[in-house]
Amino acid sequence: MREPSLGPVFGMKGGATGGGYSQVLPMEDINLHFTGDFAAIEKSHNLLSALIDNNIQSKTRSINIDPRTVSWKRVMDMNDRSLRNVVVGLGGTSFGIPRETGFDITAASEIMAILCLTTSLSDLKERLGNIFIGFTFDKKPVYARDLNAQGAMAALLKDAIEPNLVQTIEGTPAIIHGGPFANIAQGTNSVLATKMGMSLSDYVVTEAGFGSDLGAEKFFDIKCQSAGLSPKAMVLVATIRALKYHGGVALADLGQENADAVEKGLPNLEKHLENTAHFNLPVVVAINRFTSDSEAEIEVIRKRCQALGHPVFINEAWAKGGAGAEDLAQGVVDTVNESKDKFTPMYDWDSPVMEKIATIATKIYGAKSVDYDARAKRDLRKIERLGLEKLPVCIAKTQKSLSDNPKLLGRPRDFILTVREIEIAAGAGFLIPITGNILRMPGLPATPSAEAIDIDDEGNISGLF
Amino acid sequence: MREPSLGPVFGMKGGATGGGYSQVLPMEDINLHFTGDFAAIEKSHNLLSALIDNNIQSKTRSINIDPRTVSWKRVMDMNDRSLRNVVVGLGGTSFGIPRETGFDITAASEIMAILCLTTSLSDLKERLGNIFIGFTFDKKPVYARDLNAQGAMAALLKDAIEPNLVQTIEGTPAIIHGGPFANIAQGTNSVLATKMGMSLSDYVVTEAGFGSDLGAEKFFDIKCQSAGLSPKAMVLVATIRALKYHGGVALADLGQENADAVEKGLPNLEKHLENTAHFNLPVVVAINRFTSDSEAEIEVIRKRCQALGHPVFINEAWAKGGAGAEDLAQGVVDTVNESKDKFTPMYDWDSPVMEKIATIATKIYGAKSVDYDARAKRDLRKIERLGLEKLPVCIAKTQKSLSDNPKLLGRPRDFILTVREIEIAAGAGFLIPITGNILRMPGLPATPSAEAIDIDDEGNISGLF
Amino acid sequence: MREPSLGPVFGMKGGATGGGYSQVLPMEDINLHFTGDFAAIEKSHNLLSALIDNNIQSKTRSINIDPRTVSWKRVMDMNDRSLRNVVVGLGGTSFGIPRETGFDITAASEIMAILCLTTSLSDLKERLGNIFIGFTFDKKPVYARDLNAQGAMAALLKDAIEPNLVQTIEGTPAIIHGGPFANIAQGTNSVLATKMGMSLSDYVVTEAGFGSDLGAEKFFDIKCQSAGLSPKAMVLVATIRALKYHGGVALADLGQENADAVEKGLPNLEKHLENTAHFNLPVVVAINRFTSDSEAEIEVIRKRCQALGHPVFINEAWAKGGAGAEDLAQGVVDTVNESKDKFTPMYDWDSPVMEKIATIATKIYGAKSVDYDARAKRDLRKIERLGLEKLPVCIAKTQKSLSDNPKLLGRPRDFILTVREIEIAAGAGFLIPITGNILRMPGLPATPSAEAIDIDDEGNISGLF
Amino acid sequence: MREPSLGPVFGMKGGATGGGYSQVLPMEDINLHFTGDFAAIEKSHNLLSALIDNNIQSKTRSINIDPRTVSWKRVMDMNDRSLRNVVVGLGGTSFGIPRETGFDITAASEIMAILCLTTSLSDLKERLGNIFIGFTFDKKPVYARDLNAQGAMAALLKDAIEPNLVQTIEGTPAIIHGGPFANIAQGTNSVLATKMGMSLSDYVVTEAGFGSDLGAEKFFDIKCQSAGLSPKAMVLVATIRALKYHGGVALADLGQENADAVEKGLPNLEKHLENTAHFNLPVVVAINRFTSDSEAEIEVIRKRCQALGHPVFINEAWAKGGAGAEDLAQGVVDTVNESKDKFTPMYDWDSPVMEKIATIATKIYGAKSVDYDARAKRDLRKIERLGLEKLPVCIAKTQKSLSDNPKLLGRPRDFILTVREIEIAAGAGFLIPITGNILRMPGLPATPSAEAIDIDDEGNISGLF
Repeated sequence: MREPSLGPVFGMKGGATGGGYSQVLPMEDINLHFTGDFAAIEKSHNLLSALIDNNIQSKTRSINIDPRTVSWKRVMDMNDRSLRNVVVGLGGTSFGIPRETGFDITAASEIMAILCLTTSLSDLKERLGNIFIGFTFDKKPVYARDLNAQGAMAALLKDAIEPNLVQTIEGTPAIIHGGPFANIAQGTNSVLATKMGMSLSDYVVTEAGFGSDLGAEKFFDIKCQSAGLSPKAMVLVATIRALKYHGGVALADLGQENADAVEKGLPNLEKHLENTAHFNLPVVVAINRFTSDSEAEIEVIRKRCQALGHPVFINEAWAKGGAGAEDLAQGVVDTVNESKDKFTPMYDWDSPVMEKIATIATKIYGAKSVDYDARAKRDLRKIERLGLEKLPVCIAKTQKSLSDNPKLLGRPRDFILTVREIEIAAGAGFLIPITGNILRMPGLPATPSAEAIDIDDEGNISGLF
Repeated sequence: MREPSLGPVFGMKGGATGGGYSQVLPMEDINLHFTGDFAAIEKSHNLLSALIDNNIQSKTRSINIDPRTVSWKRVMDMNDRSLRNVVVGLGGTSFGIPRETGFDITAASEIMAILCLTTSLSDLKERLGNIFIGFTFDKKPVYARDLNAQGAMAALLKDAIEPNLVQTIEGTPAIIHGGPFANIAQGTNSVLATKMGMSLSDYVVTEAGFGSDLGAEKFFDIKCQSAGLSPKAMVLVATIRALKYHGGVALADLGQENADAVEKGLPNLEKHLENTAHFNLPVVVAINRFTSDSEAEIEVIRKRCQALGHPVFINEAWAKGGAGAEDLAQGVVDTVNESKDKFTPMYDWDSPVMEKIATIATKIYGAKSVDYDARAKRDLRKIERLGLEKLPVCIAKTQKSLSDNPKLLGRPRDFILTVREIEIAAGAGFLIPITGNILRMPGLPATPSAEAIDIDDEGNISGLF
Repeated sequence: MREPSLGPVFGMKGGATGGGYSQVLPMEDINLHFTGDFAAIEKSHNLLSALIDNNIQSKTRSINIDPRTVSWKRVMDMNDRSLRNVVVGLGGTSFGIPRETGFDITAASEIMAILCLTTSLSDLKERLGNIFIGFTFDKKPVYARDLNAQGAMAALLKDAIEPNLVQTIEGTPAIIHGGPFANIAQGTNSVLATKMGMSLSDYVVTEAGFGSDLGAEKFFDIKCQSAGLSPKAMVLVATIRALKYHGGVALADLGQENADAVEKGLPNLEKHLENTAHFNLPVVVAINRFTSDSEAEIEVIRKRCQALGHPVFINEAWAKGGAGAEDLAQGVVDTVNESKDKFTPMYDWDSPVMEKIATIATKIYGAKSVDYDARAKRDLRKIERLGLEKLPVCIAKTQKSLSDNPKLLGRPRDFILTVREIEIAAGAGFLIPITGNILRMPGLPATPSAEAIDIDDEGNISGLF
Repeated sequence: MREPSLGPVFGMKGGATGGGYSQVLPMEDINLHFTGDFAAIEKSHNLLSALIDNNIQSKTRSINIDPRTVSWKRVMDMNDRSLRNVVVGLGGTSFGIPRETGFDITAASEIMAILCLTTSLSDLKERLGNIFIGFTFDKKPVYARDLNAQGAMAALLKDAIEPNLVQTIEGTPAIIHGGPFANIAQGTNSVLATKMGMSLSDYVVTEAGFGSDLGAEKFFDIKCQSAGLSPKAMVLVATIRALKYHGGVALADLGQENADAVEKGLPNLEKHLENTAHFNLPVVVAINRFTSDSEAEIEVIRKRCQALGHPVFINEAWAKGGAGAEDLAQGVVDTVNESKDKFTPMYDWDSPVMEKIATIATKIYGAKSVDYDARAKRDLRKIERLGLEKLPVCIAKTQKSLSDNPKLLGRPRDFILTVREIEIAAGAGFLIPITGNILRMPGLPATPSAEAIDIDDEGNISGLF
C-alpha cells in the first residue's frame, strides 16, 4: 500500500489507513509522520532546490544557470495553495537572485516517483543525478549531477528507500511504501515493496488508487514496464455510493436507497471495465460494502457485470475483517489460475509524445481529441530538444471524472482533453502532461479537518479519520 | 544535548554528534533525520502557516486578517537564503492572496522554542494557541487559537515532545532533545529532557552552545527562570584554536604553535568568565584538547584562569573517551559540592524591554549602548500594544564576536549594539531582538558540504562529519 | 495620420514623419513629445490605475474590489519589457495591497482607443466611465464610473481630444491625431480628425498601417461602423523590398535586384487584394518607390495587378514630393468617381465572439481554424457574463505575417490561429483577442536607437530617423 | 515660480497657480499638463530605466550590471503609493530579469533636479551622463554614460530646458520653470529661469516653499552655491492660520479668532527667523492675509517681529492684486538697499556627510542629534566608496513639522532626527538623506480630489483649485 500524505489529513479527505475491521495499525502514526519517508523525500527534494539557488547566487562556482528557466520547484507535505506560485530571492544582494517558482505537495515530488521506481541505491543515485533542472544562459540543459547533488540527496533517502512493515487490525503483515495521489503523481507503491512482497508471498495485491484511468493506467504503463512486472489480474473496486454519484445523486443524498441512480451510474463502471481490456487482463469486480447499501442496489451492479462476463464479489472487510473478504480473495485466486491472458501495456514508450497522450486520452478517458495550450506546445519542443520523447507519460488529471473536467460525471464522451503544460521528470523517467485545471499542490477547504483534530493530556489524538 | 539541524550538515559546519572517542551514536541517523523531531516541528509550524493563508483566502470563514501584518513565516530545515524573503499567493483568485513573507530555518521556529520550554501536552497546546500571528484589518491581534490550530499542531508533536535516548561510543546513555542555534534561537535542549535527566541521575550536564553571551545567557535567563531550574556550576569550554583566532591569527594558521596569540586572545575568555559572575555561579574552565595544542599554549590559559581563581582542567575525551574527561568531571563535582553560590538571573522579566536588552548588551556583550532601527522602534510599540513587555528577551546575535559585528574579535569595547527588529514569540514566551546583520535563515557556502556527501551500494554514508 | 509613439523612436523602427520630400514637419517635435497628446493619454490612464489601487487600500471608502481580478493595467510610452509583468503594492500596510499587474505601451491604452473613436466631450466621458476594471469580491463587475474617475480623466484629455494641424515639407496642411500600432491596438487616427478632414476637403486619405489584415480590417470593421463612415476606395501600398522579403530574400540582401523573388512574394500581395474584396471596395495599388527598385521588379507587380484588374501607380513622393504622387492621386480620384461599389463591413457585430474571430481568421488571415488557450476560454466566459458579446473584435496579431507566427512569410495557408487571451475594452467598445506571441508592450533591441541619439549645444538633435 | 505636479492636483493639496487676484493664468493649463515639461522629464527618466533593464536582459551587450544593486527607479507624475515598491521583470525569459525596484513621483526625479540646476545643454548632458545607476557584479559603479543614455535623454529635454513665460491675472509677466516638493526634492525653480529673470529685471523674487527648513535651506545651500547666486534678502511668509495650527488649534477650528493660539504658535515663526540669521541675510516678514484674520491676531505677530527687529508687512494680493502687495514690495526693496549683509551658506560642501547633516539638523531643524538606520549607514559607506562625500545634502523631511515627525508642532526641541536611507543624485550633484517616515512617492487620500473634477461639453473644467 501507499503512505498517506499530511495534506489531506488536515484538509478534506482524511487519512489512509482504512476503516472498521479493515485497517492497518497504528493509525495515528501511519497518518501523521509514519517512519519519516515523506520528510526524507521532502528534504532530499528541497536540498536540490537550495543547491540550485546557491549556485545561482555564487559568483565563483556558478555554472551559469538562467534562473528564469529553472523548472525544479520546492515541495511541502501540506495542502498550501499560497505556495503554488511564489517569488523567492527578494531582499538584496545577500538574499539570492529573485525568481519565480513554486511548491508542489511532497507526494508529487519527482523524488517520490524515483523512490517508487528505483531498484537499488546505485540506481537511485543515477536517477537523482538525471533530474532535469533547467538551462544555462547559453541554453545548455542542467541536471542535478551538474551540481554534485545526487550523493547527499541519496544519503537523505537511506532509510526511506526501505519498505515499511505494518500489520492489519488482525495482525497480518502488510507493506506500506511510496506515495499516493495517482491524480497528480505516479501514485502507486514502490517497486521495491512489490518485489519484496513477491519474494515473500504467493500473491501480491497492490493498490492503485483513483480508478482505471489514473492509478491503474500509470501502474501498468509506467511501473510494470519500468520494473518488468506482469500482473495476472485486476480487481476493480466499486461502491454503491460512487455509482449513485455518477448517476446524478447529490453528495448529501448518497445515503438514500436509489437503485435507479446506481443503474444510471453504471456506464462509469462499464468504462473502467472496458479500460482493463486494453491491458489484456482478467477483471474481478469487488463491491466495497457500506452499511447503507441495499440488496437491490447491489443487484444492479451484479447483474450488469455478470452480463459482461466479469465475476463480482461483495467485500465486507470493513464490517467483518479478513473473513469478509474471503470470497473475493478466492475469486481472485481462481481468476488468476484460470486466465490465459498475458498482460500487455497500452502504448509503446517509443511512440511520439503526442501519440502517447492521445492514446490514453481517447482509449482510456474517452476523449474525442487533445488540445494543447501554448505553454504545452513550448514544453513539447523543449522535450524534443532534450531528447526525452521516449519517456512514458504520467498524466495529471482530476480523479473526479474520467475527463479533465470534474463536473462531467458518468461516462463523458466527445470531450476535448486540454493539456496545459508538460513537466519533465527525467530522473523518474517520465513526462507529466497536466490537464484541465488540476494542480500539483492542493489547497485546504474553507473548514479544514485540522480544526477538529486534538490531542488530550494522555496523548490520545482525536479527529483523525 | 541538542539535536542537529540539517542546514549546517549540508552547509559548512557539519553535524553535531561529537568526534574521536567522544561521540554519540549512530552518527548518520542523528545527523540526518534522527527520530523525526525536526520534521514534526516543521510540519506543525507550516500547518499554522497554511491555515493562516487559507483563512485569508476564505470568504465564508474569514476572520479578517490583514495579510500585510502577518508576522508568522514558514520554516524549512535547510540553509536556503533564497527563501528568506518571498512573495506567496501569486497566480490569480484560486491561488491565495499575494503577500510578502519568508522562511526561517526550522531550529529558529517558535514551535522549537515551545517544545523546548513546555512541561506537558496541555501546556504545549496552550502555548501553541498563544502564538501571535498578526492583526485584523481593524487592528485586533490574531493568535493561533483564533484559527483553532493548536490541537492539530500539538497532535503533530505527539512523538517529538518525548526526549530521545542515545548512547555514547562507550555505551553510556545520553539524552538528545531540542534544537540548536543559540545565536538565532533559544538554542538549548528541552526542559523535559533536563528534568528527565534530573529524575534519573545525580548530575545533569547540559550544553548551551556559542558562549556565555548566547547559549548560557539564554539558558539562565529564559529556560532556568521559565522552568524553575537552579544550576549549580558552569563549565566554560575553551580551545587553544579559538583563543588564537581571537588573538588575531588567520584561520589557515591556527594549527601553528603560537602562545603569544593565545595570550592576546585571553581577554575574550576573561570576558566570558566575568559574565558568569553576573549569574552568581562557580565556573570550571575546560580546555578541549586538540592534537595540535602545545603545552606552552595550554599553560597560558591555565595560568591566567588560576590567577583569576577558576579551576582549569584538560578535557581529552576526543582522544581517550570518558577517561579523558575524568579529571574535569571530578573537578565539576567538587566545585558543585563546595560552592555556596546561589544562581541568580541577570534581569527581572518585569523590567521594560529596552532595559532588558540594555542590561544584556552592556553587562554581557560589553556594548556601550544600544541603537534601534526604525523597524525595531515600531516593533517596540507593537509589543506594548499587545501587552507583552514582560516577556524575557532572546537576542539573535552573531556567535563570531561578543558584539553584533562578526569582525570584532577578542573583547570588543565601546561598540553600539544595533537592534534591527524585534520578533514576537508569544507562545514560547519571549521576544527576539535581532541585532547586527544576523539572519534567522542561513545560506549555503559557495562550496556546500552536500557536494562531498555520498552513499555507497551498501548504504554507507561518507562525507558527513 | 497617426502620432508616433516614443517606444519605437528609442527602439528599432524609428519615428513616423516620413522621409525624403514626403515628410511632415517639424520632425523632431512630432517624433518626440509633439503636442503632448500621448502624455495626456498616459496620465488619464494611470490616474484610473492610481484610483483603483487607492480604493483597494482604503478601508473607509472601499467598494470591495478583488485586487486579483483587476484587469486594468498601467501604461508607459516606452519600449520597456520589464514592465510587462510586475507585482505592485509591496512594502507593508502603508504601501498598498500587493497584486500582480503590468504595463502596456501607451499607444495600446484603451484611452487612446477611446480618444480615436469618440465624437464629443460628453461621449468621451461616457466611454471613460464605461471602462471595465475588474470584479468585487462578490463577483460584481466594476467600471471606472464606480470610482467617479471619468470627469478627471476627461479633464486631462481636454487638449488631447483636439486634432493637430501640421504641414508637409511643401507647406500643405495635414492632420495628425491618434495613435499607431494597428498590430496591438486599434491603430488608426481619430474619428474627430477624419470628420474634420471631411468637413474641410473633398477627399480625405487616412493611413491604416500594417496591411489589410490589421490596419484596414480594424479601420473598416471598428472605426467605420462605429462612426458611420463609408470609404470609397482603398489604396494598397506595396514595396519591392517587402515583396522580396515575402519571397524569401534575407533582410541583408533586399537591396539586390531580384525579380524572381518579387514574383515569389506576390501571393502575399494577392491575399491583401483579395481581402479588400470582402469589404466591397475598389482598390488602387501604389508602389512606393525606393531608389534600389528596378524596372523589371516593378513590372512584375504591375503585370500581376493589371491581370487581376487593379490599377497600379508608382508613388515617387519620397524623391519628388507631391509631384511624385500626382498620377496616383488622380488614379484614386478616378477610381472613386467610377466605382459603384458600396462599402460593407466584414462581419455583423451581433454575431458571437468566436464567430467574429473565426471570420477574420479564416477570410482575412487565411487560417484553417482558431485555437483558444485555457485563459482565452475563461475570458470568453467572462465576456458573456458581462454581456459584452456584441462588441467588435480588435485582434492583436504580429504584423510580420498574415498569420500569428512571424516566421510564416508570403501567403500562409492551413495554419491555426491561437488566441491566448481576450482583453476587454468596454469603454472603447471592442474586445482584444491576443494571438500568437504578440505583446502589448514592446521591448528594446540589444542595440537601441536611443544610444545614437544626441543633441548639440545649439539644440540640434541627431540620430532621429 | 515652480510648476505644479499632477499628484496633488488629484490628491489633496490641489494646484499651484495662486488664488483670488493673485494668480497666474491660464490656471487649468498650468495645473494640468502646462508646456509638457513634467512629461518630458518623466520620459527622460524612464528611458534610462528602460535602457538599464534592457542591458540587463541583453546577453550580447551586457555591461554586467547586478540587478539587485540598481538604485535608479522609475517615476510617474501621480500620487500612486502602490508603485513605491514593485517587482518588475516577471513572466519568463522574454520578459526581463526579475528585480525589486519602485517609482518616485516625477517632481522627485533626479532629472528634475538636474534641469533645475543645469546651466546649458552641454552641462545638461554631462550631468545626465553622471547619474549613478548601481554596480556591476564585480562591484564597479555604473553611470548613465556607460549606457550611452545621456544624448537621447537630453534630446527629450530640448524644450523642457527652456523657462516658461506666463502672466498674472493683471497681465504682468512671470516665469514658471522647474518642479515643486521642497520636502522630498530640491524643489526650487530652475537656475536658468532665475538667471533669465536677473537679466531682464532689477529684482527677482523666487519662491522656495515649505519653510526655512526646507525650501530656503536647499535654495541657499544647494542652488545658490551651485549657481553662484548671492541673494540679498529673504521674505518669510506667515499666515495666521498656520501659526494658530502650530499653537495647537485643530484644523477645523482655524477659522475662529484666537489671538492666544497665534501667540502660542509664535515660537515656530521665531525659529524660522533665527534660521535665516545662519545665512546672514536680512528678513522681511510678510503676513499673507486671509479674510478670517483679525487685527488682534495680526498684531500679535507684528509686535513680536518688531521686537526682534524684523520689518513686517501685510500682503493683500489675494484680495487686491498687485496693489495689495505694494507696501511689502517697497519694504523688500528698502531692506535690500539698506542691508550690508553678505549671504553665506550654512555649511561647507567639503565637510563630511554626517557633519553636513548634523549641521542642518541641529542648527536649522533644532534637533538634539541624528540617528542613522542600518540602511543609511550602508549608504554612507557606499557614498564613500564612490568618492561622493563632497556633495551637498538635500534632506527629505516632512513639511508638517520642523522635526521629522509630523506631529511635533510649534518649535520642537530635543528630538532625534532619524536618517532612514541616503539616495545618491550624482548627476544633480547632491545626496538625499531621507528622514522619518517621509516618502518620495505620495499616496492619494481616501477621497481624492480627482473625484470632484469634471469637464463640461464646452470644455470648462471644474473642481480644480
